[in-house]
Amino acid sequence: MLAAAQAASTAPLLWAQLLGTARRGMATSLLRVPPPQGLLRPLAVPERLLLGPGPSNVPPRIQAAGGRQLLGHMHPEVLQVMDEIKAGIQYAFQTQNRLTLAISGSGHCAMEAALFNLLEPGDTVLVAINGIWGQRAADIARRLGANVYELLKPPGKYFTPQDIEQGLVQHKPLVLFITHGESSTGVLQPLEGLGELCHRHGCLLLVDAVASLGGAPIFMDQQEIDVLYSGSQKVLNAPPGTAPISFSERAREKLLKRKMKPLSFYLDMGWLANYWGCDEEPRRYHHTAPINSFFSLREGLAILAELKARLPTITTVRVPEGYNWKDITAFLMDSHGVEIAGGLGPTVDKVLRIGLMGCNSTGANVDRVLRALQDALTRCHRSRL
Amino acid sequence: MLAAAQAASTAPLLWAQLLGTARRGMATSLLRVPPPQGLLRPLAVPERLLLGPGPSNVPPRIQAAGGRQLLGHMHPEVLQVMDEIKAGIQYAFQTQNRLTLAISGSGHCAMEAALFNLLEPGDTVLVAINGIWGQRAADIARRLGANVYELLKPPGKYFTPQDIEQGLVQHKPLVLFITHGESSTGVLQPLEGLGELCHRHGCLLLVDAVASLGGAPIFMDQQEIDVLYSGSQKVLNAPPGTAPISFSERAREKLLKRKMKPLSFYLDMGWLANYWGCDEEPRRYHHTAPINSFFSLREGLAILAELKARLPTITTVRVPEGYNWKDITAFLMDSHGVEIAGGLGPTVDKVLRIGLMGCNSTGANVDRVLRALQDALTRCHRSRL
Repeated sequence: MLAAAQAASTAPLLWAQLLGTARRGMATSLLRVPPPQGLLRPLAVPERLLLGPGPSNVPPRIQAAGGRQLLGHMHPEVLQVMDEIKAGIQYAFQTQNRLTLAISGSGHCAMEAALFNLLEPGDTVLVAINGIWGQRAADIARRLGANVYELLKPPGKYFTPQDIEQGLVQHKPLVLFITHGESSTGVLQPLEGLGELCHRHGCLLLVDAVASLGGAPIFMDQQEIDVLYSGSQKVLNAPPGTAPISFSERAREKLLKRKMKPLSFYLDMGWLANYWGCDEEPRRYHHTAPINSFFSLREGLAILAELKARLPTITTVRVPEGYNWKDITAFLMDSHGVEIAGGLGPTVDKVLRIGLMGCNSTGANVDRVLRALQDALTRCHRSRL
Repeated sequence: MLAAAQAASTAPLLWAQLLGTARRGMATSLLRVPPPQGLLRPLAVPERLLLGPGPSNVPPRIQAAGGRQLLGHMHPEVLQVMDEIKAGIQYAFQTQNRLTLAISGSGHCAMEAALFNLLEPGDTVLVAINGIWGQRAADIARRLGANVYELLKPPGKYFTPQDIEQGLVQHKPLVLFITHGESSTGVLQPLEGLGELCHRHGCLLLVDAVASLGGAPIFMDQQEIDVLYSGSQKVLNAPPGTAPISFSERAREKLLKRKMKPLSFYLDMGWLANYWGCDEEPRRYHHTAPINSFFSLREGLAILAELKARLPTITTVRVPEGYNWKDITAFLMDSHGVEIAGGLGPTVDKVLRIGLMGCNSTGANVDRVLRALQDALTRCHRSRL
């Protein structure tokens, strides 16, 4: 009955469009563009291991979140998810900034959001360029009428605080743009001291961390970064389409002092701040948010929060159902020469504890213990469930 | 072993962030923002029937597409899906426009894409306002420095060709913005003749069909609409986050004659046209597209194409496995007083044929035949499978 059910469920579409015109005798003459053949074949998505610069593969839990049914963009559960995303970004960025949210677009869209809101036509911006991201930021800043100076390094090089200070002294910018993870060249830009340096020269520090967030330490508040953004599709492991962003109090003050509205309504931080509950006003409809992309981003941030709430030195693993933990620890010792431990106190009989400390904390040892545990699953006694 | 596998898969994240800082003895002092408690609870998405102005519920097939694994944004399969989306939009819009694609953002983002690309600072635009969408278009046009005139009607009213012509004569705009489906008031704006009228006055016609596409007839080419956009989350039944848009040759010429680049790089139609294969150049990376939102949109457009490839007057339904079609037609006739038919020629024994024609083509009759078929499933003989 599937076809009939489908026909009934999309009846408004079918009937308004076709019968409406048929009544006027125009059906055949108006439908000049036939249904495309390509769309009559099933969607083809081959499995592929994505080890490029991103997007990376999405773990099953995040895939499932993206496939959940929709809710309305103003439903309390969605606003709750947005609050959780906000807290997750604050955690990932290590910031207490009130103006923290996710842009409804890719990392590039967040780059525009940062520049569109921070800069007004005629404002001076200094863009550190050592790869493609600086080039693009300079392009966007020029489009919006900013006064753009470029601080250049050959691809593969990074900027020293001395390089930056020279630029600040020479051009007196209101904003410095710099890329934390230059994915076109593989350079990680050291950020230590740059925030303080910028602030000494009356400049705001804007950092692109699309390719680095979560994979290299970043501490927005301690490093005095004024605007920081990233993307959903790199270490956060969600599909592309949303982009975390945060503004410091200094940056927020610059926004409040704007003479003109930002060029974009879609990316206007005043509206977005309200929709994301970052101001004191009741939340107002701004745009229809990509609801299930928010679900996915929320799960990516949740995995980050869960992992980080874990001891980095001792990993506890639930004893798989049907197994005795003692069989497993004995098997690992006897057959693989690896010591791991059972639970302690409240976790006795419930978990295995794996220590990775000092010189033992290597990828090779992680592989070795995982292989040994896998072996244990097939070789140790398992009771019927 | 889930926790261990997770820890291993996100090891770069965990270890770079925590061990990297631990080595410098800063782990506890730097991680000042603790993991948010809200993210340690499972994602909660209650089931809800969405009968508001959109988003609407997503059918299982589109949900599944959104939950598929990712591919790279330049993989041939993704470019293929984009080609299929393009063809699907051309079909849904009834246009042969080459410059047809989906914006990586919501319907509002498409509104900005249309205005940012069509207008340059100082260009005159006439905005027909009879609800919120006109107001927002006027807001965006003002932000980008256009010379904005408003054509006003009270909410609930629509514009006549005479209203429009007066405005065109008085203000001599380069672009007229009008909303097809005014979802804030429930008004469907008649579009007949408006394209021709605009072109007689040297003006381009820009139509917002976010709330109407697929639910009310629209024929971009025949109606001489120059720019048309919609959203993914209404009749197309995909999650919000992508937005179909198309530009006529007249509109494309206006883009080519621009003196300045569009204000937005993210929404720059020159770049997007190339990424979507709408020009003769090899496709270049522009932004990381929301891959699985494209999968969902593709499925929404495919359902439209499949339905429209069906006769509106006679719905064929596969005979459910294990049943004899004659039992079903006889049962419907005897117990429900409803005539339907079996297959014909190549479909004999395979399908049931349900006619909905003339005064019989009503929602009540659809409900009646579906109820009767449901009854038949439980009452007719079914062989063991």
